[in-house]
Amino acid sequence: LNIAVLSGDGIGPEVIEQALKVVNAIGKKYNHEINLTHALTGAVAIDATGNPYPDETHEICMQADAVLFGAIGHPRFDNDPSAKVRPEQGLLAMRKKLGLYANIRPTLVFPSLLHKSPLRRELIENADFVCIRELTGGIYFGDKGRNETRDKAWDVCEYTKPEVDRIVRLAYEYAMKRRKKLCIVDKANVLETSRLWREVAQGIEKEYPEVATEYLFVDAAAMRIIQWPEGFDVMVTENMFGDILTDEASVISGSMGLMPSASIGLHTSVFEPIHGSYPQAAGKNIANPLGTVLSAAMMFEYAFKLMDEANEIKDIVNKSLAEGVVTVDIADGGKAFSTSEVGDWLA
Amino acid sequence: LNIAVLSGDGIGPEVIEQALKVVNAIGKKYNHEINLTHALTGAVAIDATGNPYPDETHEICMQADAVLFGAIGHPRFDNDPSAKVRPEQGLLAMRKKLGLYANIRPTLVFPSLLHKSPLRRELIENADFVCIRELTGGIYFGDKGRNETRDKAWDVCEYTKPEVDRIVRLAYEYAMKRRKKLCIVDKANVLETSRLWREVAQGIEKEYPEVATEYLFVDAAAMRIIQWPEGFDVMVTENMFGDILTDEASVISGSMGLMPSASIGLHTSVFEPIHGSYPQAAGKNIANPLGTVLSAAMMFEYAFKLMDEANEIKDIVNKSLAEGVVTVDIADGGKAFSTSEVGDWLA
Ligand SMILES: CC(C)[C@H](C(=O)O)[C@@H](O)C(=O)O
Ligand SMILES: CC(C)[C@H](C(=O)O)[C@@H](O)C(=O)O
Repeated sequence: LNIAVLSGDGIGPEVIEQALKVVNAIGKKYNHEINLTHALTGAVAIDATGNPYPDETHEICMQADAVLFGAIGHPRFDNDPSAKVRPEQGLLAMRKKLGLYANIRPTLVFPSLLHKSPLRRELIENADFVCIRELTGGIYFGDKGRNETRDKAWDVCEYTKPEVDRIVRLAYEYAMKRRKKLCIVDKANVLETSRLWREVAQGIEKEYPEVATEYLFVDAAAMRIIQWPEGFDVMVTENMFGDILTDEASVISGSMGLMPSASIGLHTSVFEPIHGSYPQAAGKNIANPLGTVLSAAMMFEYAFKLMDEANEIKDIVNKSLAEGVVTVDIADGGKAFSTSEVGDWLA
Repeated sequence: LNIAVLSGDGIGPEVIEQALKVVNAIGKKYNHEINLTHALTGAVAIDATGNPYPDETHEICMQADAVLFGAIGHPRFDNDPSAKVRPEQGLLAMRKKLGLYANIRPTLVFPSLLHKSPLRRELIENADFVCIRELTGGIYFGDKGRNETRDKAWDVCEYTKPEVDRIVRLAYEYAMKRRKKLCIVDKANVLETSRLWREVAQGIEKEYPEVATEYLFVDAAAMRIIQWPEGFDVMVTENMFGDILTDEASVISGSMGLMPSASIGLHTSVFEPIHGSYPQAAGKNIANPLGTVLSAAMMFEYAFKLMDEANEIKDIVNKSLAEGVVTVDIADGGKAFSTSEVGDWLA
């Protein structure tokens, strides 16, 4: 199993280190040869090479069966939107060059963490849904610019039928393996790209008669995620809407530090926790490694199709929660373990 | 006081009728001559004229000091995104032609309705913020289309400096009258239009040294609205992000039926409840009129600058809540009054 390891910035290296302990332990137990190749990305890559996603890193990812990704971003870029080179550009370049067209984010609820949700318990208890976000199209990658006098700016949102087709199909396949409900989120009452989405989706819908399909406007979806999260099974949407809705959804679980994600690509796939680089905690050995460990579980499931290995990782995470071997963000007055202690225990 | 009355579709006419009872009562008490001119919009206007915002309606709005608006939308258009004429087009035409550039939506929490919020009480108790959404620019009104083979679609998001300038200034003025905190929401790490917004805002920020300004990415804002709504005072953002975030914010109050809005325009201003046409309840005399009544209060405040009148309307609404003279959506097991009974009581 050839894994490219991109630790990135902030708490990235610390959480990745714990996930690798678990990956190696699983490899040993199940007799897999694990080859790890580390590569630079994000602010650390800018410092070393001037490029947040260096060609060398890209080559390493292209040759890997999967990429395990930490986080990128550094506060020194945050209030300087005009900086020429920024860590986020690396992320976007990686998505585009690896063809990572589908970002998959489960919203999981952990019973022992329900009280951490900002939502009332009864709304969230049985929530279990997956957001699928298109990741290489839309307004992120369309033409953008300014006029000569720089007092007018534009960003073009663009989609083609094949782009919509492949992600909607992936969502239907996903729904077939779950509770067979698909919610397609768009803004077809305003946007032409959304009308294209809906047209394509309505075609594919006919091929999946078993799946209950629903179309929801993005504003209504933003409400429903809070009002009735248990109503969702699989949700699919375009890039920009997905950015907003997946983050909104991640909060309602109350356990952001535990949320994994997978980005399925044409060339390889990338697995990363959703929490970001969290610079305030970097180097303190307090960050929660479970989101990264669960991302590694998704890697075994999606990239390697090794379900037993994936399930064993999920089981040990549940056990760490049950036994309270957790970091300070979820220790809740109980003993708080360090990032590396949690990693050692899991491994 | 010349008021154009656009009742629109669904529950629009019923809730508008109650608001007019209150407006007339206030007019009588404070000795104002109230001139009401009714005009068609939405599905009813399509039925009558083929146009959801007929020229005649536009003329009536242009001559009015304010527009009181109910709701538009009809289920028969909902699953037919390709319908040539749609009620929403009327709404967008009205916004554009009246120059309604700033949509203002307070997120109010009513103590007696706190338990209706999907959020835990302690998160929401002291929430009191206002979302200001740019309403005549961005991806809503940019070029949109398809290529010849119709397998590619685009929508252009566009902003000019003057468009950003006027809404950001309005937001700063608003913040000055409140707790002097302004949160500017964009996606400056990805979008050129957002970078223009940030550039303009950073210029205006210097003119308001008393206001604490914060810049937040839209995905982070979608999280913060749920995690820490009390942290916001005034929020300002572009059209599409505003569509999503204002709807998200409206839900956390738990009292959607009570939420008013104002759209400030170049030619006149429009006041409307945020709840929409709610077709399931139309004609049943059960819809909550309080959002429309509070929109009328905003009309007295913003369009007529009559604060005593505005406050008296707000007070009587609070009294109806305190005494339980409310519709079924918030009656909570107590006696449910009909729409018209609530209107009569308020008047
Ligand atoms: C950092 C940023 C460019 C990125 C995005 O908007 O896609 C992030 O918010 C995410 O969701 O991964
Ligand atoms: C009906 C629709 C076009 C409209 C919008 O997106 O602006 C509505 O959602 C709103 O927020 O008033």
